[in-house]
Amino acid sequence: MPEDERAIRTLIANWMAASRSGDIARVLSLMADDVLFLVPGQPPFGKEKFAESSRGMKDLHIDGKSDVQEVVVSGEWAWCRTQLQVTVTAPGGKVVRRSGQTLSVLRKQADGSWLLARDANLLAAEPAS
Amino acid sequence: MPEDERAIRTLIANWMAASRSGDIARVLSLMADDVLFLVPGQPPFGKEKFAESSRGMKDLHIDGKSDVQEVVVSGEWAWCRTQLQVTVTAPGGKVVRRSGQTLSVLRKQADGSWLLARDANLLAAEPAS
Repeated sequence: MPEDERAIRTLIANWMAASRSGDIARVLSLMADDVLFLVPGQPPFGKEKFAESSRGMKDLHIDGKSDVQEVVVSGEWAWCRTQLQVTVTAPGGKVVRRSGQTLSVLRKQADGSWLLARDANLLAAEPAS
Repeated sequence: MPEDERAIRTLIANWMAASRSGDIARVLSLMADDVLFLVPGQPPFGKEKFAESSRGMKDLHIDGKSDVQEVVVSGEWAWCRTQLQVTVTAPGGKVVRRSGQTLSVLRKQADGSWLLARDANLLAAEPAS
């Protein structure tokens, strides 16, 4: 596997691990300062709002698995498509499952590392089981 | 404006015009054969399902405006982000408005033209006015 693709797959795995352990600072370090998140029914939002929203969820337990379905690198830009399943457990034990695809754009930094630049999140709630 | 960016903006304008006039064949000619459309709450779907779904909407009048917010070209790949507003009018006059962002990936062909390759559609219904 080419080095850039491996680096991007590692970034996604690190993101999931940091989300699981509630390490918001680590998640924030994996995105560009001018990142934009796109979700249905809301205007795009950036890093600051992501951080604020993550801090608002600090009592929730987030688990998830990501299946990276394709990664394409072209120069200093790349895009990837992932099938995600996220489970959010509230302190009282209530569980919400969301699943779906993400389409992300990543940018290579001067030091050769990659950061998330744009992220379209198509996840929808799964019916309660 | 660089030629590739102009070509991509023209593709988006042509797409909107062809949708408006119900020219499904023209819309299909603007996407790669292996295109994938991502929408919330559904698995990704391709060109055949897009065509089928468009034919199912042939009695609806579709209008819309697109505001291309950024286009980034890197070699034979490009991505762009657009704010879309789509108005769908049924034969009886009922109107549904959907708006939101799209994040799209495009690929340059051997002849220098561009085709849509991946499209994440975050549009949500606007409240009825």
